Amino acid sequence: MGKRPGGRSARVRDAVRQATLTELAEHGYSGLTVENVAIRSGVHKTTVYRRWGSAEGLIADALELAREEPWPLPDTGSLREDLREIAGLVRSGFADPVAGPISAAFVSAAVQSTGPAQALHDFFAARHEQAAEVVRRAVARGELPADTDVADVIRTAVAPIYYRLFITHEPVTERDAERAADAALAAARAGVLHS
Amino acid sequence: MGKRPGGRSARVRDAVRQATLTELAEHGYSGLTVENVAIRSGVHKTTVYRRWGSAEGLIADALELAREEPWPLPDTGSLREDLREIAGLVRSGFADPVAGPISAAFVSAAVQSTGPAQALHDFFAARHEQAAEVVRRAVARGELPADTDVADVIRTAVAPIYYRLFITHEPVTERDAERAADAALAAARAGVLHS
Repeated sequence: MGKRPGGRSARVRDAVRQATLTELAEHGYSGLTVENVAIRSGVHKTTVYRRWGSAEGLIADALELAREEPWPLPDTGSLREDLREIAGLVRSGFADPVAGPISAAFVSAAVQSTGPAQALHDFFAARHEQAAEVVRRAVARGELPADTDVADVIRTAVAPIYYRLFITHEPVTERDAERAADAALAAARAGVLHS
Repeated sequence: MGKRPGGRSARVRDAVRQATLTELAEHGYSGLTVENVAIRSGVHKTTVYRRWGSAEGLIADALELAREEPWPLPDTGSLREDLREIAGLVRSGFADPVAGPISAAFVSAAVQSTGPAQALHDFFAARHEQAAEVVRRAVARGELPADTDVADVIRTAVAPIYYRLFITHEPVTERDAERAADAALAAARAGVLHS
């Protein structure tokens, strides 16, 4: 029998995913175990082991589900404002007391293990593709050169936020996020971010 | 008796540091133990425990020593070339089969533990300060606005490299590094990176 979306299999997957996210929020990647996720989700431990295998598998599956979720794409009519909103969402997401530690745990898992690294790679490929729509619109409006690498404008707009959070361990203010967005816009306008 | 630089204490510290770097290169942060560093360095285990305490302490001390090391600051007379060289050094450093895994282990340790995070923060503060000299010279030459945030030009020039390596897990080509440097220059010229 195939797995039906919305059927028992999907409900089990969602319960395990919710438990994974809660465990990540509370204990981080180093505290994530199949055992605790089984207890919290109410799904039998042998089922969790069989389908997800390990903490790595739980992370990869949670990221796969996250990738498919709708994401609030700004459409202000101005690329400057759209990029500032995207950078602002990244900043505020990590500053959020619930969502922040979960996202940070994904990043931490990915620097430690190849499974989560691949899953995070795929997650960001999807996010870049979605977010690049604001840049495509700006190209269509004639705001940017036609050969602009649209995904690279997104990378450039958010990279300094991640750099401060996960590399240099510096605070990230709203102004830092705006400035990252404005820098990406200036670079794109100057024709530096061409494909 | 005080500790003399170059004396027995400094030699022990250097032996422990070399052993720490070699262990990091071979086993990463998760494989770094006081026990193995003691064996490899030939320093007695109780001494390593007493002075460094843990893997976190070993990482923090190795970063403190790295911070004080001379660093090849480019001076080509052109900010574009200087920034490209800096971005290129970051890229090639991580691509190096020996130095790359060690640097990556520092990043990994810092996302997992607060001690290494503080040490890496201090390391980057020193590196930004050193590297910003190329931007200060460009300001003095009149290439950039006088109110340019010189450290932020450096952050902007290298952030996309770290973003690809440690967040999105994408490859980093020489062209990606050049483009990151050029984007920072365009943003600085546009006056976006002001203090």
